[in-house]
Amino acid sequence: MADAPFDSSDSARSGAPLRHAQSVCFADPLALGLGGALPAVEVTYETYGRLAPGRDNAVLVCHAISGDSHVARHDAADDPGWWDIMVGPGRPIDTDRYFVVCSNVLGGCRGTTGPNSLDPRSGRPYGADFPVVTVDDMVAVQRRLIAHLGIDSLRLVIGGSLGGHQALAWAARHPELVRGCALLATSARLTSQALAFDVVGRNAILHDPGYRGGQYYEHAQGPVVGLALARMLAHITYLSRETMTAKFDPGRLEPRDVATAFEKTFSVGSYLAYQGHKFVERFDANSYVTLSMAMDLFDLGATPEALQAVLGASRCRRLLVSFSSDWLFPPEQHRQIAAALIRAGRSVSSCEVQASGGHDAFLLEEKIDLYGGLVRAFAEHVDGDGATGTGDVAALEQPTSIFHGQRLDYDVVLECIPAGASVLDLGCGPGGLLSRLRQRGHTRLVGVELSEAAVLACVDQGLDVMQSDLERGLAPFADHQFDVVVLSQTLQSIVDTEGIVGEMLRVGRSCLVTFPNFAYRKLRRMLAEEGRSPKGGGVYQFEWWNTPNRRFPSILDFEEFCAARGIRIDRAVYLDSETGRRVTGDPNLDADVAIVVLRR
Amino acid sequence: MADAPFDSSDSARSGAPLRHAQSVCFADPLALGLGGALPAVEVTYETYGRLAPGRDNAVLVCHAISGDSHVARHDAADDPGWWDIMVGPGRPIDTDRYFVVCSNVLGGCRGTTGPNSLDPRSGRPYGADFPVVTVDDMVAVQRRLIAHLGIDSLRLVIGGSLGGHQALAWAARHPELVRGCALLATSARLTSQALAFDVVGRNAILHDPGYRGGQYYEHAQGPVVGLALARMLAHITYLSRETMTAKFDPGRLEPRDVATAFEKTFSVGSYLAYQGHKFVERFDANSYVTLSMAMDLFDLGATPEALQAVLGASRCRRLLVSFSSDWLFPPEQHRQIAAALIRAGRSVSSCEVQASGGHDAFLLEEKIDLYGGLVRAFAEHVDGDGATGTGDVAALEQPTSIFHGQRLDYDVVLECIPAGASVLDLGCGPGGLLSRLRQRGHTRLVGVELSEAAVLACVDQGLDVMQSDLERGLAPFADHQFDVVVLSQTLQSIVDTEGIVGEMLRVGRSCLVTFPNFAYRKLRRMLAEEGRSPKGGGVYQFEWWNTPNRRFPSILDFEEFCAARGIRIDRAVYLDSETGRRVTGDPNLDADVAIVVLRR
Repeated sequence: MADAPFDSSDSARSGAPLRHAQSVCFADPLALGLGGALPAVEVTYETYGRLAPGRDNAVLVCHAISGDSHVARHDAADDPGWWDIMVGPGRPIDTDRYFVVCSNVLGGCRGTTGPNSLDPRSGRPYGADFPVVTVDDMVAVQRRLIAHLGIDSLRLVIGGSLGGHQALAWAARHPELVRGCALLATSARLTSQALAFDVVGRNAILHDPGYRGGQYYEHAQGPVVGLALARMLAHITYLSRETMTAKFDPGRLEPRDVATAFEKTFSVGSYLAYQGHKFVERFDANSYVTLSMAMDLFDLGATPEALQAVLGASRCRRLLVSFSSDWLFPPEQHRQIAAALIRAGRSVSSCEVQASGGHDAFLLEEKIDLYGGLVRAFAEHVDGDGATGTGDVAALEQPTSIFHGQRLDYDVVLECIPAGASVLDLGCGPGGLLSRLRQRGHTRLVGVELSEAAVLACVDQGLDVMQSDLERGLAPFADHQFDVVVLSQTLQSIVDTEGIVGEMLRVGRSCLVTFPNFAYRKLRRMLAEEGRSPKGGGVYQFEWWNTPNRRFPSILDFEEFCAARGIRIDRAVYLDSETGRRVTGDPNLDADVAIVVLRR
Repeated sequence: MADAPFDSSDSARSGAPLRHAQSVCFADPLALGLGGALPAVEVTYETYGRLAPGRDNAVLVCHAISGDSHVARHDAADDPGWWDIMVGPGRPIDTDRYFVVCSNVLGGCRGTTGPNSLDPRSGRPYGADFPVVTVDDMVAVQRRLIAHLGIDSLRLVIGGSLGGHQALAWAARHPELVRGCALLATSARLTSQALAFDVVGRNAILHDPGYRGGQYYEHAQGPVVGLALARMLAHITYLSRETMTAKFDPGRLEPRDVATAFEKTFSVGSYLAYQGHKFVERFDANSYVTLSMAMDLFDLGATPEALQAVLGASRCRRLLVSFSSDWLFPPEQHRQIAAALIRAGRSVSSCEVQASGGHDAFLLEEKIDLYGGLVRAFAEHVDGDGATGTGDVAALEQPTSIFHGQRLDYDVVLECIPAGASVLDLGCGPGGLLSRLRQRGHTRLVGVELSEAAVLACVDQGLDVMQSDLERGLAPFADHQFDVVVLSQTLQSIVDTEGIVGEMLRVGRSCLVTFPNFAYRKLRRMLAEEGRSPKGGGVYQFEWWNTPNRRFPSILDFEEFCAARGIRIDRAVYLDSETGRRVTGDPNLDADVAIVVLRR
């Protein structure tokens, strides 16, 4: 452990009083999703910034299981918030521009009605009589709060983990109120593995003799061991294996001097004991049971079809940010959400951030420039204005020519795409083609791109983009979902040629492919006369040993490939990009770029 | 859950009496590694097959944390053993050929001295007075047992998980007794993540009021909740996320009707409760604490250097089998062991089996043909006889020529390798070159190969082979560890050309590369005259869209690549493989295969 502080992450938040919190009590009974009702509900919340005169700048932040309303500092003297890196003046959720609201969830223990609140009917804490609440119930309470605050439209609802569940439920239940929904490290329902960990944690609490069937408030001590064990276990699942290795492998047998009855042979043991004890000081066991059960019961749909129906209910824009090392809410679960939205024809952008921080990554600095940048850009463009972003987009463009770095194929590509067509652009880069199509009035436009920087550039222009490796195919997309699928200057870098072409023809009514011609006159000459693996500029600027290109077809090769599979070439344009002329005679010899329209 | 039985894996083993078990009591005190001593030790064990007259066929099987001496059925009427798929007549560990011994570990609760044994000094069970034992102590007890059985040499010590720790300790502590060591799903020490899960499990036991400081034997009930919780948690870590998804995602809210006080809202909850209760019936909590602590304290070395020193102490052959979905003992940990052995110049073969079963995969049928086959072949060749294996090796050979499927470069390669040189063959396939070198009398030979089938073929010939992707480089190997590093007909399929050539020159005193020449006359002609991406037979038998080749250098390209990096070409032989002739005039035009010897 050496000097690594024990409280470097959110999990070490103190139970200090929330000095800027406000409360409101709703005296109407709240009917609950699984039956029963609460006679009244109190909500504790904090706000940041000001509601604009047009009331269009409200942002609702939803917290995760151990969070509260104190999402950020209110001033320099204030206690740290749990998401200071995301919310504040000049931050991605800029409190100089947006009116930010964050409330403690229903069932929590930091001010909003929960098991430790007094049941007005009995005058005693609810304890285990507190009803089972769902994520929808949490949202129903937040719905009352924003009405109370005079908000009738949310620019953005955002949350990670259980906060993401709430944001998903917001869009599903109140589609008329939500314009943008940003989801981090979350899922449409938990994996069975994550569920299993929760079950073990809850059993540890429920079977602690101090739990006393949930009525422990009058006793000196509640289920402190069970709650600490549950927290210790959960904490492991929030970290990645890499993080734990880096933190605890050196000095494995050098525990910190923590006052604890828990085992502390190992440094990781002393760390977990510390986390467990800190949590017990600030959190209520009944709340933990209530909130973890709400999370476990959250289920937007067990099948892709069910998920599509629920998610499709809202036309709001959505941003999905997952983290590569998050094994509790793995990126695969975000792909399921994205696929359902895509198939429902809804607006979605997604990014799998390469980060080492595990599930906690959405709270950490490590990749805040990227995921915070995505949130900032997404919030900016929620209302679909196509204002140009601020990044250096041209630098991210792929070249067309084998001679130089310019894109020459866009004019021809645009010419081949019918007005108003829906377009899926594979390997869309920073959105050069998509933004041109938007200027021309196309409305249904989606890009697929691998590079994080290019994905950010797309979101920064208000474009919909899915981060994905084309080698994985186009599973999220339905048959014939787009009028045109474009694969522009990317064919040569995909190993699974048959796979991608087959997928394009499945998803598009027609397909447009542009690729460099390996049998272009000058390339032939290099091999034939100089005895060298062909090389040029632009797409062919690389050496044989470092080129990103993997496949080297000539125009003739590609034509034969199509013919053998019954794929019709509807239209073909060939360019000599050195001169910029179209080639008509012998394109396999004289053109370095081919632009072909395919149809099955 | 539907009809999936709850007790399909080893974890559901019953506490039935071990009808074929024998016991022996060693009355000498056993001094323990961490201090203290046990006054006497009883060992419960089972044996299978017969010790050969030459006493050279003994195999010791070491069990994992919840196992016992009953590794396999003794006859058709017997209870199932925990590793019936591995041990028995005709099985990989063939009891018709080998004399197999398996004993309950020290600290266990199935017959061998452990916390529930009577302390002869007090006449009461040891309970929490049972000393902390280490894996070395377990081995010391097994050492007494095999002496008692008249065994003075072990053909094989084998184990998975904690059983693998014992096998590792056997080779380290008794190098003179062990000829072969097969390690499955194990590690040189636990990851900090795995350690953390154990800490939580132990704390659940130790803080269960029923634990009573470990002296619960006289009471009606011990720490049943704590032990069940520990088992439930551990059980999650034995399964992969994929396995849990497949098993519990359908019918998530349809728990089985298990008699339990544990939460059973979810099917996975009822399953874990069942596993927890079954475990409590057959296992002792003090034993669980003792064995899990022994596992957590096991540490062969915190640094690569320390690990190398410990592992290098034994000259026995070693086989390492990890499983891709095992996140508790991840394949990375096997790579660390393999690297230490390689650097110590010891004999090791390793394979990362692609399997979905998680840590439990070493107990499951899923890939038994492969991992059982590896164990069978390894046991067969432990004494280094180079008898030819039984598989169809030729079918796995890569071709040399661009015209046909035969290997023509071996003669030249053999000619370029000095007699007696140590050789590392990268992309060794089924071992064609290595077995030829062995016939010629070379002793230090190692292959690296990606294909599982080819790795098995190598082990089946008694060759040392490491399964690894060459794109990852040669990190396990030390600088100048081999006289010659060979990369034969593989350069063209590796993306990171600079990386692999740099690594070869680091590891080898000289390097031998054979590759197809992209500027060979007929290939040039295809591009120049026909306008097609060049294609031939053999290495070039593929189409542009499905070739495994990624890089397409000519001889000239490769020479320039070397010259630019100060790499000297010491010797070069060029072949026209269509005619079989050596080319001397203009190889870049007339040779389709180049064989070059490089030196920095």
